[in-house]
Amino acid sequence: MLSNIVKEKLISIVTKENFADSKTERLVYSYDATPNFQSMPDAVVAPSNTAEVSEILKLCNEYNVPIVPRGSGTNLCAGTCPTEGGVVLLFKHMNKIIEIDEDNLTITVQPGVITLDMIHAIEEKGLFYPPDPSSMKISTIGGNINENSGGLRGLKYGVTRDYVIGLEAVLPNGDIIRTGGKLAKDVAGYDLTRLFVGSEGTLVVITEATLKLIPMPETRKTMLALYQDLGAAAKSVSKIIANKIIPTTLEFLDQPTLKVVEDFAQIGLPTNVQAVLLIEQDGPLEVVERDMKKIAEVCKAEHAVSIQVAATEEEADALRTARRAALSAVARLKPTTILEDATVPRSEIANMVQAINDITEKYHLTICTFGHAGDGNLHPTCATDARNHEEMERVEKAFAEIFEKAIELGGTITGEHGVGAMKAPYLEWKLKAEGIAAMKAIKQAFDPNNIMNPGKVFAKDSKKRVVITR
Amino acid sequence: MLSNIVKEKLISIVTKENFADSKTERLVYSYDATPNFQSMPDAVVAPSNTAEVSEILKLCNEYNVPIVPRGSGTNLCAGTCPTEGGVVLLFKHMNKIIEIDEDNLTITVQPGVITLDMIHAIEEKGLFYPPDPSSMKISTIGGNINENSGGLRGLKYGVTRDYVIGLEAVLPNGDIIRTGGKLAKDVAGYDLTRLFVGSEGTLVVITEATLKLIPMPETRKTMLALYQDLGAAAKSVSKIIANKIIPTTLEFLDQPTLKVVEDFAQIGLPTNVQAVLLIEQDGPLEVVERDMKKIAEVCKAEHAVSIQVAATEEEADALRTARRAALSAVARLKPTTILEDATVPRSEIANMVQAINDITEKYHLTICTFGHAGDGNLHPTCATDARNHEEMERVEKAFAEIFEKAIELGGTITGEHGVGAMKAPYLEWKLKAEGIAAMKAIKQAFDPNNIMNPGKVFAKDSKKRVVITR
Repeated sequence: MLSNIVKEKLISIVTKENFADSKTERLVYSYDATPNFQSMPDAVVAPSNTAEVSEILKLCNEYNVPIVPRGSGTNLCAGTCPTEGGVVLLFKHMNKIIEIDEDNLTITVQPGVITLDMIHAIEEKGLFYPPDPSSMKISTIGGNINENSGGLRGLKYGVTRDYVIGLEAVLPNGDIIRTGGKLAKDVAGYDLTRLFVGSEGTLVVITEATLKLIPMPETRKTMLALYQDLGAAAKSVSKIIANKIIPTTLEFLDQPTLKVVEDFAQIGLPTNVQAVLLIEQDGPLEVVERDMKKIAEVCKAEHAVSIQVAATEEEADALRTARRAALSAVARLKPTTILEDATVPRSEIANMVQAINDITEKYHLTICTFGHAGDGNLHPTCATDARNHEEMERVEKAFAEIFEKAIELGGTITGEHGVGAMKAPYLEWKLKAEGIAAMKAIKQAFDPNNIMNPGKVFAKDSKKRVVITR
Repeated sequence: MLSNIVKEKLISIVTKENFADSKTERLVYSYDATPNFQSMPDAVVAPSNTAEVSEILKLCNEYNVPIVPRGSGTNLCAGTCPTEGGVVLLFKHMNKIIEIDEDNLTITVQPGVITLDMIHAIEEKGLFYPPDPSSMKISTIGGNINENSGGLRGLKYGVTRDYVIGLEAVLPNGDIIRTGGKLAKDVAGYDLTRLFVGSEGTLVVITEATLKLIPMPETRKTMLALYQDLGAAAKSVSKIIANKIIPTTLEFLDQPTLKVVEDFAQIGLPTNVQAVLLIEQDGPLEVVERDMKKIAEVCKAEHAVSIQVAATEEEADALRTARRAALSAVARLKPTTILEDATVPRSEIANMVQAINDITEKYHLTICTFGHAGDGNLHPTCATDARNHEEMERVEKAFAEIFEKAIELGGTITGEHGVGAMKAPYLEWKLKAEGIAAMKAIKQAFDPNNIMNPGKVFAKDSKKRVVITR
């Protein structure tokens, strides 16, 4: 609980209307989109500007009060669950688009802007901001930056990190710093911009961001390729890229996912095939047409049983919506949905999908797998019930084996969801003790009192690794 | 000077052949491509593998011996000048291309590989590594990574940082860590990969890198647009991009540069115009042709006096070579050549060029300006004589005013050359005391004994800022 003096000082910074500590209000911010994680904050505070954020951080640093910066809480790694209590920082008043600069192709925003609102404002100018996390309808750009969010267009266009070129950030000691700028190139010192992107609120509070924009592609085409063989679908992914075509989107859905999505969305998806690739290309019309033709040839050569090109933008949109709805669709199966994020080199997709299937069978679970196949970024998603402790133990074992396998294949424990509280115990599997120590040294340098989103990224203990016997 | 015990231990790590401390050998590594900086190292050491690098760092950390990792020393910020003595680390034995992975579109290399050798090996596979620093014929990829090198294709394709996806690095304490991997997406903890890129050898020694490759563009076209008005040339740059075309290359050369380059290279460059834009576009043929046509229209509308499209690849190559030769050409004018790197938002190019001209006149200097106009990254290059102390004082004042102006226009003190020893006194102008403090905290966290390339990035004192009166 906050001491009276901290409470009073917080109120004097943000005014009474922007401070809340009733049980109801705290309950609302006690969890995020991650199942099975809940913890009560001591208060919820909504600053109106950077100066107030600076005052809040100085105060919390002095009194050792944890700070949890929070956008819309759509993350899937318990990154904004206030695991150690403290103050949840909301950005509902810092939600302005400050400027769209059409000469320099940049947008400058406050962290609380809803991602899709920002994208609409950008598209009105004929410009393009490619990162499109599935939660973009409700996520904030501040949350996207803190998590380095990915999306369906990462293969060709990269992720949030690749578009952040300048930041204003507040350090735990209250210092306000600016990194980068409206600059295509800047090597004045260490790359703090990219260090802060994806740092999950554990180093600084981001109060403003300048993002790079690009011209809107002229056209876009969407295709579905259907497979009776998982391996063939995975092989098509590698083959398309080895043929020197980088599609905008190269998504994979397995049969269990197809069934639940079709049941949910009723858009006529085929449910009698083993796997589907959703492929999109954008760019100048003649290039898109040529690429789509080549992609279709590759898929046919790799034994796709059917290839369907969306005839209209409505049809294409329905397909994309189906893919975006995958999580919601799986969530209808059982009370608890755990969506994971194992990522491997693209060439190992077939092996990874096979391993997920074997592990699912071994532990008698319901796991639907879909994801960004072109990025090697798969989302095995388990429909389960947190109240069934016996099953949850099996779920945990299964996911541990999935992470183990991803790392064995040269991959990582998280491609786009972040570490948060959920993956923290597994981080050492990827980084080894020395890598964790290097990251902890940075954390300690910025935040010696560990007030910034404590309990995230770094775990008290690492999970023991499974010994794989062959 | 190294103590006997350190010398013996170094020899026992790398063997006698790979240790040198004669005056001649030390002299060779006492300077880099940056004029006016020279300082003798105590020894020069060439390790053969990562384990040896680790042993060397542990030893130097124990005995507080500075370490200066060095590629080919082509940097222009005195980044590899051993300003505080110590051991220069050479990578002549760690110069292998480990693997080109055509499925995952990656190359894995040791730091000592010559950039152009690497690019040739990549191009043989029909793949493309875009960063092309002007020194690429002799620079090493390790040097490029440490400096986050740019080049002529940065506008469309980004810089070195955008292609480094995995690193092996040795920390000052001897720990060997691995970051990233052959992964399109990885958010497992802080982005150490990008933190190390551009860290100028002040944090870690990079011993292996995995770089992202892309398919080779199908075709490329080159154009010269000539102007009798500097402002019109600069305006064309903004207009092309505001017209939603991102050319591969958008280079600017002013008249003084044109004259020295033509005098040097004799390729028929026009010397009777005030400025030239060298514009390239690559991609599918139909797109390139369409873009070049639109670009020509924009340039004409902005009062280009002539537009010439290179008829053959040889002609295009001559134009590119002329641009690449700018530094060498200016260097023939006088004994000392100081090439700077002020960078501004693209929309401010005209203002920046004007300011450089005014400052040149004010201080009666010879400054040729060329650079990556599309990136807002200009290289005002001064032909002078380091022995003329009176003139050198004027040179220093002029560059200080140029940096001041760049920052006033929302720019930075260095776009692609790095801070090193040369720009260190100016870094605070860009970052303010709070930004420097944040970076120093990272330095201290990684390198508490300050053995990693000491004297670089962080200066003992900041230059006083010029007070601009209007």
